[in-house]
Amino acid sequence: MPAISGDDYIKRIDQLNTEIWYNGGKINGRISQHPAFKGAIQSQAMLYDLQLRDDYIEEMTYHSPHTGDRIGTSYIQPRTIQELKKRSRMIQIWAKIHGGMMGRSPDYMNTVLMAFASSARLLEGKANCFPKRLVQFYERAREEDMSFTHTFINPQFNRSKYYIEDSEEPIAAKIVDETEAGLIIKGARLLATQGGMTDELLVFSAGRIFEEDNAYFLSVPSDANGLKFICRESFCKGDSSFNYPLSSRFEEMDTMIVFDNVFIPWERVFFYKNIEVGNRFQRESAFLPFSLHQVINRQVVKLEFVLGIAEEIIESIHTGTYENVQEKMAEIIVGLETIKALLIKSEVNATLDEFGLMRPELASLQAASSAFPKIYPRAVEIIQLLAASGLMTIPTEEDFNSSIRMDLDQYLQSATKDAVERVKLFRLAWDLTMSPFGSRQTQYERFFFGVPNVLASELYHGYNKKKYQEFIKAFIDQTFTSENESKSSR
Amino acid sequence: MPAISGDDYIKRIDQLNTEIWYNGGKINGRISQHPAFKGAIQSQAMLYDLQLRDDYIEEMTYHSPHTGDRIGTSYIQPRTIQELKKRSRMIQIWAKIHGGMMGRSPDYMNTVLMAFASSARLLEGKANCFPKRLVQFYERAREEDMSFTHTFINPQFNRSKYYIEDSEEPIAAKIVDETEAGLIIKGARLLATQGGMTDELLVFSAGRIFEEDNAYFLSVPSDANGLKFICRESFCKGDSSFNYPLSSRFEEMDTMIVFDNVFIPWERVFFYKNIEVGNRFQRESAFLPFSLHQVINRQVVKLEFVLGIAEEIIESIHTGTYENVQEKMAEIIVGLETIKALLIKSEVNATLDEFGLMRPELASLQAASSAFPKIYPRAVEIIQLLAASGLMTIPTEEDFNSSIRMDLDQYLQSATKDAVERVKLFRLAWDLTMSPFGSRQTQYERFFFGVPNVLASELYHGYNKKKYQEFIKAFIDQTFTSENESKSSR
Amino acid sequence: MPAISGDDYIKRIDQLNTEIWYNGGKINGRISQHPAFKGAIQSQAMLYDLQLRDDYIEEMTYHSPHTGDRIGTSYIQPRTIQELKKRSRMIQIWAKIHGGMMGRSPDYMNTVLMAFASSARLLEGKANCFPKRLVQFYERAREEDMSFTHTFINPQFNRSKYYIEDSEEPIAAKIVDETEAGLIIKGARLLATQGGMTDELLVFSAGRIFEEDNAYFLSVPSDANGLKFICRESFCKGDSSFNYPLSSRFEEMDTMIVFDNVFIPWERVFFYKNIEVGNRFQRESAFLPFSLHQVINRQVVKLEFVLGIAEEIIESIHTGTYENVQEKMAEIIVGLETIKALLIKSEVNATLDEFGLMRPELASLQAASSAFPKIYPRAVEIIQLLAASGLMTIPTEEDFNSSIRMDLDQYLQSATKDAVERVKLFRLAWDLTMSPFGSRQTQYERFFFGVPNVLASELYHGYNKKKYQEFIKAFIDQTFTSENESKSSR
Amino acid sequence: MPAISGDDYIKRIDQLNTEIWYNGGKINGRISQHPAFKGAIQSQAMLYDLQLRDDYIEEMTYHSPHTGDRIGTSYIQPRTIQELKKRSRMIQIWAKIHGGMMGRSPDYMNTVLMAFASSARLLEGKANCFPKRLVQFYERAREEDMSFTHTFINPQFNRSKYYIEDSEEPIAAKIVDETEAGLIIKGARLLATQGGMTDELLVFSAGRIFEEDNAYFLSVPSDANGLKFICRESFCKGDSSFNYPLSSRFEEMDTMIVFDNVFIPWERVFFYKNIEVGNRFQRESAFLPFSLHQVINRQVVKLEFVLGIAEEIIESIHTGTYENVQEKMAEIIVGLETIKALLIKSEVNATLDEFGLMRPELASLQAASSAFPKIYPRAVEIIQLLAASGLMTIPTEEDFNSSIRMDLDQYLQSATKDAVERVKLFRLAWDLTMSPFGSRQTQYERFFFGVPNVLASELYHGYNKKKYQEFIKAFIDQTFTSENESKSSR
Repeated sequence: MPAISGDDYIKRIDQLNTEIWYNGGKINGRISQHPAFKGAIQSQAMLYDLQLRDDYIEEMTYHSPHTGDRIGTSYIQPRTIQELKKRSRMIQIWAKIHGGMMGRSPDYMNTVLMAFASSARLLEGKANCFPKRLVQFYERAREEDMSFTHTFINPQFNRSKYYIEDSEEPIAAKIVDETEAGLIIKGARLLATQGGMTDELLVFSAGRIFEEDNAYFLSVPSDANGLKFICRESFCKGDSSFNYPLSSRFEEMDTMIVFDNVFIPWERVFFYKNIEVGNRFQRESAFLPFSLHQVINRQVVKLEFVLGIAEEIIESIHTGTYENVQEKMAEIIVGLETIKALLIKSEVNATLDEFGLMRPELASLQAASSAFPKIYPRAVEIIQLLAASGLMTIPTEEDFNSSIRMDLDQYLQSATKDAVERVKLFRLAWDLTMSPFGSRQTQYERFFFGVPNVLASELYHGYNKKKYQEFIKAFIDQTFTSENESKSSR
Repeated sequence: MPAISGDDYIKRIDQLNTEIWYNGGKINGRISQHPAFKGAIQSQAMLYDLQLRDDYIEEMTYHSPHTGDRIGTSYIQPRTIQELKKRSRMIQIWAKIHGGMMGRSPDYMNTVLMAFASSARLLEGKANCFPKRLVQFYERAREEDMSFTHTFINPQFNRSKYYIEDSEEPIAAKIVDETEAGLIIKGARLLATQGGMTDELLVFSAGRIFEEDNAYFLSVPSDANGLKFICRESFCKGDSSFNYPLSSRFEEMDTMIVFDNVFIPWERVFFYKNIEVGNRFQRESAFLPFSLHQVINRQVVKLEFVLGIAEEIIESIHTGTYENVQEKMAEIIVGLETIKALLIKSEVNATLDEFGLMRPELASLQAASSAFPKIYPRAVEIIQLLAASGLMTIPTEEDFNSSIRMDLDQYLQSATKDAVERVKLFRLAWDLTMSPFGSRQTQYERFFFGVPNVLASELYHGYNKKKYQEFIKAFIDQTFTSENESKSSR
Repeated sequence: MPAISGDDYIKRIDQLNTEIWYNGGKINGRISQHPAFKGAIQSQAMLYDLQLRDDYIEEMTYHSPHTGDRIGTSYIQPRTIQELKKRSRMIQIWAKIHGGMMGRSPDYMNTVLMAFASSARLLEGKANCFPKRLVQFYERAREEDMSFTHTFINPQFNRSKYYIEDSEEPIAAKIVDETEAGLIIKGARLLATQGGMTDELLVFSAGRIFEEDNAYFLSVPSDANGLKFICRESFCKGDSSFNYPLSSRFEEMDTMIVFDNVFIPWERVFFYKNIEVGNRFQRESAFLPFSLHQVINRQVVKLEFVLGIAEEIIESIHTGTYENVQEKMAEIIVGLETIKALLIKSEVNATLDEFGLMRPELASLQAASSAFPKIYPRAVEIIQLLAASGLMTIPTEEDFNSSIRMDLDQYLQSATKDAVERVKLFRLAWDLTMSPFGSRQTQYERFFFGVPNVLASELYHGYNKKKYQEFIKAFIDQTFTSENESKSSR
Repeated sequence: MPAISGDDYIKRIDQLNTEIWYNGGKINGRISQHPAFKGAIQSQAMLYDLQLRDDYIEEMTYHSPHTGDRIGTSYIQPRTIQELKKRSRMIQIWAKIHGGMMGRSPDYMNTVLMAFASSARLLEGKANCFPKRLVQFYERAREEDMSFTHTFINPQFNRSKYYIEDSEEPIAAKIVDETEAGLIIKGARLLATQGGMTDELLVFSAGRIFEEDNAYFLSVPSDANGLKFICRESFCKGDSSFNYPLSSRFEEMDTMIVFDNVFIPWERVFFYKNIEVGNRFQRESAFLPFSLHQVINRQVVKLEFVLGIAEEIIESIHTGTYENVQEKMAEIIVGLETIKALLIKSEVNATLDEFGLMRPELASLQAASSAFPKIYPRAVEIIQLLAASGLMTIPTEEDFNSSIRMDLDQYLQSATKDAVERVKLFRLAWDLTMSPFGSRQTQYERFFFGVPNVLASELYHGYNKKKYQEFIKAFIDQTFTSENESKSSR
């Protein structure tokens, strides 16, 4: 089955017998009907549908190198600038459907798997490493348009610098046994977003590994024996898209994953018990540039979404002539232009990497991923500052359907919008910035690629500072030559 | 009836036949039992109970100058520094019960009424002004321990600079008729916090008045004919204080007030149709220093609450040794010390004002009220940065009461807390910073005393800059003398 | 005379009999020998020399469309992306010689004149406008490689919003008479950087004009009768490039221009006494995109310069492992990448404009010009924070040439540099950030394109917000279609 | 000799035969006549004179407990709140003479010595410690009104975390020998402000000591054999107080100290070769609260100075009606009020310490010392933003004395000031914020009490967070009692 439709997706998910715990009970029946999941599953289905629509199929799919079938563009291994840009276009088209709210829309995980599989060469000839399985798994996923979540955060037990777990029973998930057929995993991992609503769960080591049992990379079907998804409280508080225009549709859920002696057959194990590989594979692979490229594309759309809402608010209550309002809007505009520009730069300066991929320039993307966690929360705050008391005057759809409608119509109209339109707009702003869904969005973006100071450290260390130091040395020595000069070209 | 108990309060509220609309329906039955109100009403009752407790009665009450009965300290007209400090102590004691979350705890409105009544002299001899009624009304409220809300924000129809409403039917509430018995009011006002859960509603003009009909100051019982309270969505999402430690107890509700030709008898009208008084009374009265004094006292406790949570989080996951964590905590500490210090300065520099009140120094309080709207949102952000993924891993009480309890116990314990204690703490942090209740708290504090740039403008204009200009002139002329010098003493 | 050499430039300047006042006296003799000017003149000469060097001539010049001679690239009217990029390359090559310090290197003014002349069509058919003279003047300047300064700031007499000058004698320079031969100008203008060290002075109206006499655009030779340049204090405090590596070479001087009834012959008047044109020509011409394009290119080099110095400091005292140092460096890197990316975006999205010029995208450049005045002062502050006490321990070249050299060598060496190298580096950092020259640089960049809130207002008003509003409207209506979607492509 | 006059001070300094190196030469003749020192020495003399003036003698002196003579208030060991406030008053009076510019006015060092001597008990019974000598030395200094500088910064050779010097010849000054008569010191220290213009140099260990030879506390006369002061470049660029209203009078000079086998007799050694004492004495003594108390008092005056200049600028060019100007001024006002309030709080909450001193509350002062390094540079930036181009249009006194005076008078007048007054004001602003003197002031305040993140760490660790954690615990358990509540009183 090549690129799938929404229905295909929903059927496949519903057929799985995944163990999901929500609010003290195990979910029975079709997951696609459960209040905590149905909004996101419907929205995800819309994404899949779009890739088959006549007006989008060109952008959203490409021809499988194996079968010639149309398969999802998010799986493409870009070999040219054009293919890289096709990826961008695909990501932004999907993102516009969800306003950038779905951090784990399928393109994210598909990109991750593509990047890892393209880097399989790094595993060749290393102990306990199975590069071919990884490539084959990627190809199968691509041809079947499989959906994934992943998890790489260990439980937040002790975050001090040199902590090594020493509890009797595992807390962080690890290899507890190894048989002829495969591995046994026990323990937990955090923050599997969309946990339970995908076909598979990808599990990999994200560095800082000190023990063999924590070093592995594998995939497991969501309904594997012993695998449990434990949900947090749902942030979808109702079905009405009037009341909850975002949370009723895009609440993706975060789950804690419990591995209760889960068995992983060898064909799904890509490496294991190799500390060095565990610590280096993610960093040395094509993971970072391509996952950042996906994320930044989505974030561009999210900022456009925020900017549009901000301007709608301003227009509706006629505040655009205030100096401080203009300055706030200029901040958002500069933020949006900055992220867009860094994305363009990463593509303009893309080069073929060691794996034959057209890799976007990393420094630009890292700069964007350092800037966005400041830009986005500030943009959210600006919405709050612009909308002010309007964010506390938010009656519900039910109010508008009741006998006080006339009062609402009279007293909640604005200069340019009737009361219904105005309340819809302000509820959207509220759901984006102040609902539990909206607050989680902000928190999510703050930490998407890690703790800010770690990002800063990586950017600093990875950046080519040498050429600027040479600029200074030549400047001090006054030995400016064409050779020196050309060293610090962009 | 002097200082009342919680029961007294609840009974009185329940007896009123107030028209409150919630989610498309009119609330019937006892308001104290309604899910959207019962938490806040119970908490408010706790406050009233406290004032009668043996160990608090001294602080929380004083002897009525009329009857000698013990009446609530929030009604006291301070004539000495000691009485001013007694006010502070009372405010902070109450605030500790609600962690500073109840912006409209009774002391706020009681302070407002006290300040206005103490300034009644400003109304003397002015057209359509009734200072005696104001004083008498204050005295009655004080002796009966009445509860109030108020509202001074007009509908957010058009916020451009020079906008004057010209719709056929009133939008902003105004005087539409005047009879021998009193006034008739029609139109709406926004943001009556605790609307419907108090005895009375105080309505006054907050400046920027261009038309007679908008200039008035009056009080109206909550159940007056034609008066409607229209609620926003409730931010209390459940009763469990495990799940919602703050919102289940302190969600105060914000209401839109609709005056449907409400009749106000003369004895409750303190002035009307006097534009000049409407524009000046609030500013020239003792309102600003005393209401700020109440608010800043409450905000001190709120910052202490935030600081305590932050440190508990840090301790629970052992992150106190990180440089960036220490810097964030230092930010909160500096914020708390700053607000405390400005409050102390306002009391140290208090002077008897023209009304015979011991008035705290305004500049200090204005500085605090300009600083807090930056300090508090930043402190909230710091909690989010410190707790990180912990704010997304928040199972519910129901989860802990189910068969997955063992998994939770194992995987959600932290270095110093068991899973239950840890999740309680993080849910508290979430309810403070990310729940709809918490987000509203942040928004509320951002705007408590008005739009930031207006506050800045008022602070700038009101501040005594002259003495520092003279310092500079003398410095430039090098005419430093003891006389010049003493001009700029603190 | 086509593209000139440094000697050509100096000779031409020295031949002029320009009236320049410095520190209470009129400068006599060759201006190129005067202590306040010689550094900048020498450096400017280096720029001119470079354009004739074999290894640079291709980049720095192009063939005159009139004569075929090699003329300076800064005069080129770009018709293609390649020519636009050639401009960038030329600007950055020159900027590397002065580390981005010379805000008025010849390419700036040449760009300004090119942009105005290319927009001459806007003057066609308008009263008192002479588009042909403007084009001819540009062509002459281009073929003779003339140098310019300009001034568009009126004296800072009264900066309130609606101020109109009404003094008896003019303060702001204006037309006081008109004869058959030309105009007479009287009054003053501020901030002519490089005033006195260029061939000509360009004077134009920069909007906000209410009176005819203030509306004009003209050029005048530096040594015109009645024209005086009054210098501020020089920020070059000595010749030693050890002591003052920047100020001894790049102090450009700012002058006040006094027009003492200066006569301007008609052939140098491009328009006059046309309020509408005076208010609109600058904004509607190609001035903004091309002058911004020049400035941002220079600022990229300046940030590279700052980054190089910062890293040199860190390396010299081994502080690169500190978390807070890495964060500060990441800030500079993000700043540099941002400005570079916006510049690239402006070129990627360049389009042919109404004048046939390949115009860089304005929004990107405006975003950069809003961001840079925050990025640069912060980068300067970071240098100060990184170098700390090292910026106060700066002995002079004379100290190193004296008998205490041994003490200096022993006590001022650093982990990686000997004392001389180290002090040279820190003196460079000091001259960049703390000397009067350095402080002026920071101030200059803060205000290069105007007051920050005016820039914000212009960015806000000029930006295409409509497409994002439509995005939101379609989102609220859930009418996402390929058509809607494509509206908000980058 | 009790409290001295300016003449007394100058004579004493001139009599010393101190070895000072400036710009490659050894200073000969009277130091009080040397261009790099005379301004500061004159200003310091003014301070001394003031303490004997009839109208100030009460505030500026007190009666010696030994002789009854009038001695300088900065030496007083405060036993009561009144004496603590007397200290504040004395500090602010002196600070007003120099606008807070002299960071090392005599009261600073006198306070330091007072605090150390008052803590002598900490040295009792410890190896190589001589508490009595310290007390006696303090008493002598007090009775003779001696002047001091000190230095506790080692050369900036290698600032990495765990660096221990291992060069053959000492870099950081250390004990190289010990004889019957005293100690021999060799090596260097940085940043002795006012080095060479005081009677004595106090040298002490400021923690982070790993070796015995670096642990010592002693005093040495400025003209001791082998002691050299090596100046940085002077930031006084001329005598004219028109041109350089601050730098001509308050440039204090920073010197590197070289100990070339300097002999220190035992009576001036207070402890030595005791690593533990070296690491703890400063922190455990009364040094921190009292030196902070001095500094914060001075900084209050400095902020008043800045505020006065800012308002003068605004008034002179009529910009007070701009929203953004008001916001900037409100920032300065909030900053000033904050620092003032923290100072008041430290005094209101002062308590008798273990040494019998009335010690101001440390937490308030630490908060102030964390806040000021952000407030001051921002205030400086605000001045620059408010004055804009006015800071580049600064002709000199010589210009006003020349024939272009008429032009200056006409074109540099402002709405409220004539040209001379206006230029004086803007030159003052320039000297405060942009001259090398001004830039050093900003840098100096940034680092006065250490590196920002170290200050943050100390504040965090020292702060009483426990009571707020208990508040949270009781809150979560809902066990609010009067006992819990009272724990977190201010």
